Amino acid sequence: MKFRITPINGGVCAVDGIYASGVNAGFKKDGFDLGFIRSDEEMDIVYTFTTNKFQAAPIKYVLNNDIKKTNFILANSKNANAMTGIEGIKDIEEILGFLNENIEVKNPIMSSTGVIGVRIDKDKIKAGIEKFDFNEKNSDKFAKSIMTTDSFKKEIAFEVEGEFGKFKIGGVAKGAGMINPAMATMLCFITTDANIPSDEMDEVLKANLEESFNAISVDGDTSTNDSVFLMSTKKGGYEKEAFREALKKVMQKLSLDIVKDGEGATKAVAFVVTGAKDDKEAKKTAKAFTNSLLVKTAIFGEDPNWGRIASTVGASGVECDENKLKISFENVVVYNRGEILFDEETENKAHNVMKKDEFKIYVDLGMGDGKFTAYGCDLSYDYVKINAEYRT
Amino acid sequence: MKFRITPINGGVCAVDGIYASGVNAGFKKDGFDLGFIRSDEEMDIVYTFTTNKFQAAPIKYVLNNDIKKTNFILANSKNANAMTGIEGIKDIEEILGFLNENIEVKNPIMSSTGVIGVRIDKDKIKAGIEKFDFNEKNSDKFAKSIMTTDSFKKEIAFEVEGEFGKFKIGGVAKGAGMINPAMATMLCFITTDANIPSDEMDEVLKANLEESFNAISVDGDTSTNDSVFLMSTKKGGYEKEAFREALKKVMQKLSLDIVKDGEGATKAVAFVVTGAKDDKEAKKTAKAFTNSLLVKTAIFGEDPNWGRIASTVGASGVECDENKLKISFENVVVYNRGEILFDEETENKAHNVMKKDEFKIYVDLGMGDGKFTAYGCDLSYDYVKINAEYRT
Repeated sequence: MKFRITPINGGVCAVDGIYASGVNAGFKKDGFDLGFIRSDEEMDIVYTFTTNKFQAAPIKYVLNNDIKKTNFILANSKNANAMTGIEGIKDIEEILGFLNENIEVKNPIMSSTGVIGVRIDKDKIKAGIEKFDFNEKNSDKFAKSIMTTDSFKKEIAFEVEGEFGKFKIGGVAKGAGMINPAMATMLCFITTDANIPSDEMDEVLKANLEESFNAISVDGDTSTNDSVFLMSTKKGGYEKEAFREALKKVMQKLSLDIVKDGEGATKAVAFVVTGAKDDKEAKKTAKAFTNSLLVKTAIFGEDPNWGRIASTVGASGVECDENKLKISFENVVVYNRGEILFDEETENKAHNVMKKDEFKIYVDLGMGDGKFTAYGCDLSYDYVKINAEYRT
Repeated sequence: MKFRITPINGGVCAVDGIYASGVNAGFKKDGFDLGFIRSDEEMDIVYTFTTNKFQAAPIKYVLNNDIKKTNFILANSKNANAMTGIEGIKDIEEILGFLNENIEVKNPIMSSTGVIGVRIDKDKIKAGIEKFDFNEKNSDKFAKSIMTTDSFKKEIAFEVEGEFGKFKIGGVAKGAGMINPAMATMLCFITTDANIPSDEMDEVLKANLEESFNAISVDGDTSTNDSVFLMSTKKGGYEKEAFREALKKVMQKLSLDIVKDGEGATKAVAFVVTGAKDDKEAKKTAKAFTNSLLVKTAIFGEDPNWGRIASTVGASGVECDENKLKISFENVVVYNRGEILFDEETENKAHNVMKKDEFKIYVDLGMGDGKFTAYGCDLSYDYVKINAEYRT
């Protein structure tokens, strides 16, 4: 082993020279709703944003200004600042101008989540900014300040040691609904002091997306605000393989936390697809499971209704053959290359697998070597409740 | 007006020489679950089936035997006879052989709906066949015998009169869940005595699909059993335009009934998309609304959360521009080409529109002349209840 990855506390603040916190700016009745991450010196930053064509104003602001270094991220919940046009961008400029009167910032950016189509309340944000203690190192408060329908905060940090020296990496994310990331998910902030070359940051971030945020779905709806940010102070050590591995761990942990916290979800399920014609078709199939209402409700009902899984394969548009298909709930095979193995005993065993909070469903298409694992959750009464009552 | 279309009673039996009925064969605790449509003489028949690659055994049977004329359709609910392989087809052959011992049939076919992945109970079907009164003209019993989670029967008939003479056309359909027809929907049977040339039947059926069954979605799941059959005794009159119009009315009525009866649905909504780059993009957008969980739950909550509609447009992959987009709930404009018109008064008006059982949401993309209207329903607690408890 050339390096060792150890979990540590501190979230995004685990990294030296990075500060974060949150306050109540009056968007939520109680609790944090406005937060920041900042650094002593400017950090290199790379990002990946939603493929939704109506990108929110904070995303446009970052892209318009081609931000590559920053020392301040301001983040709020309860308002996405999306579909707000030029005015939405002007609001950000005014807010960041005000911020600069309170603390000297370099290329500050904003990141927002919440309701789409409503102008942001600048006065509340400004009042919130005045409440900030800029010297707090409190990743917990920051993580809470970006939560919307999330039921728990999503945070992780590691220290990585090897012959190259050591570095730290920490991340925070939010998300529970409107989750079907096409390039990234709702909001995710990752900090590190790894001395990673600037031109490698973007590459390594995107390399890990496919098996983390791009592999999850709560409801098939791709948001206007999906953003993943990776920032580095570059004060620590660096080794490519170690960094890639640590970043992958951070991104997988945070993306799986989002599925586990899927709106109303009671179960997190990994759909392991193998034997597809190629990886692309495997992904298409695996994602189809995470977005099928009938598969999701069967999971909620702990009903090993494998016919719905088969039907979803057939409808997903991939090359398949019912005489080559194999379906298992963990190690319980219910359908094997044309043979139905679903008797009372098998049904009971599969039902028992589904009683667990987390389990795997294996689907082998028998067509080739393509594989992909997607992570989804069930569809419960509470999903409907949360989303039918979101604004009321 | 060259012809007149008048609603009449009788469903599929409105047509002379056509008989139909249903019995309880023991699949449902109470009520009809096995039915038939038959004719005195052989009828021309055309059909369109699901694009799900795992087509059910009854569909394979029709395709394998290249059926073009028939005098008997046997239909059952509670078991889809899908994912049952060669055995599923052999079961059909045995059942139809038994049928022929009870009544002389020519090229009989079967049509099934229900749970996927379970062998059909041949003994129950045979016992049911023995209960049939083959001389009944009872479309009502037939319509009920194919219902699964449907809460009402779907039936319609017209008499069409013109200079060419007259003909009758009647139809029956079922469907409430696993509805996202890619070529057709769950089950639909249309009878007519129009003397339509055999080579025009298929053309006119497919011409009307796009604005009927292909325009609806309950849950985005394309079934293994979707089938639409059009049968003609050819004893009546015929005129192309009149027939096309009458068939369209039958198909639109039955497909809209399916949306209104969507599992757990409380509202049926028409998503009228205009101004898309082309009709294909309009369809992509309109169908995206019918399948968005967030749009569907907002409709259930009567919440005019137009941001979710905008976000769905942006995520649907079509050419769009937030400065050209326009969104209205009936005549209440909430967003107009970059301008948010969503104040308290507008919100109340839009909310009032959404209180209705049926309403239209208009979305103009402002990019071209493409248009498409899709029909969908809301997502309620009852959808989850129905599908989490389906087999238990």
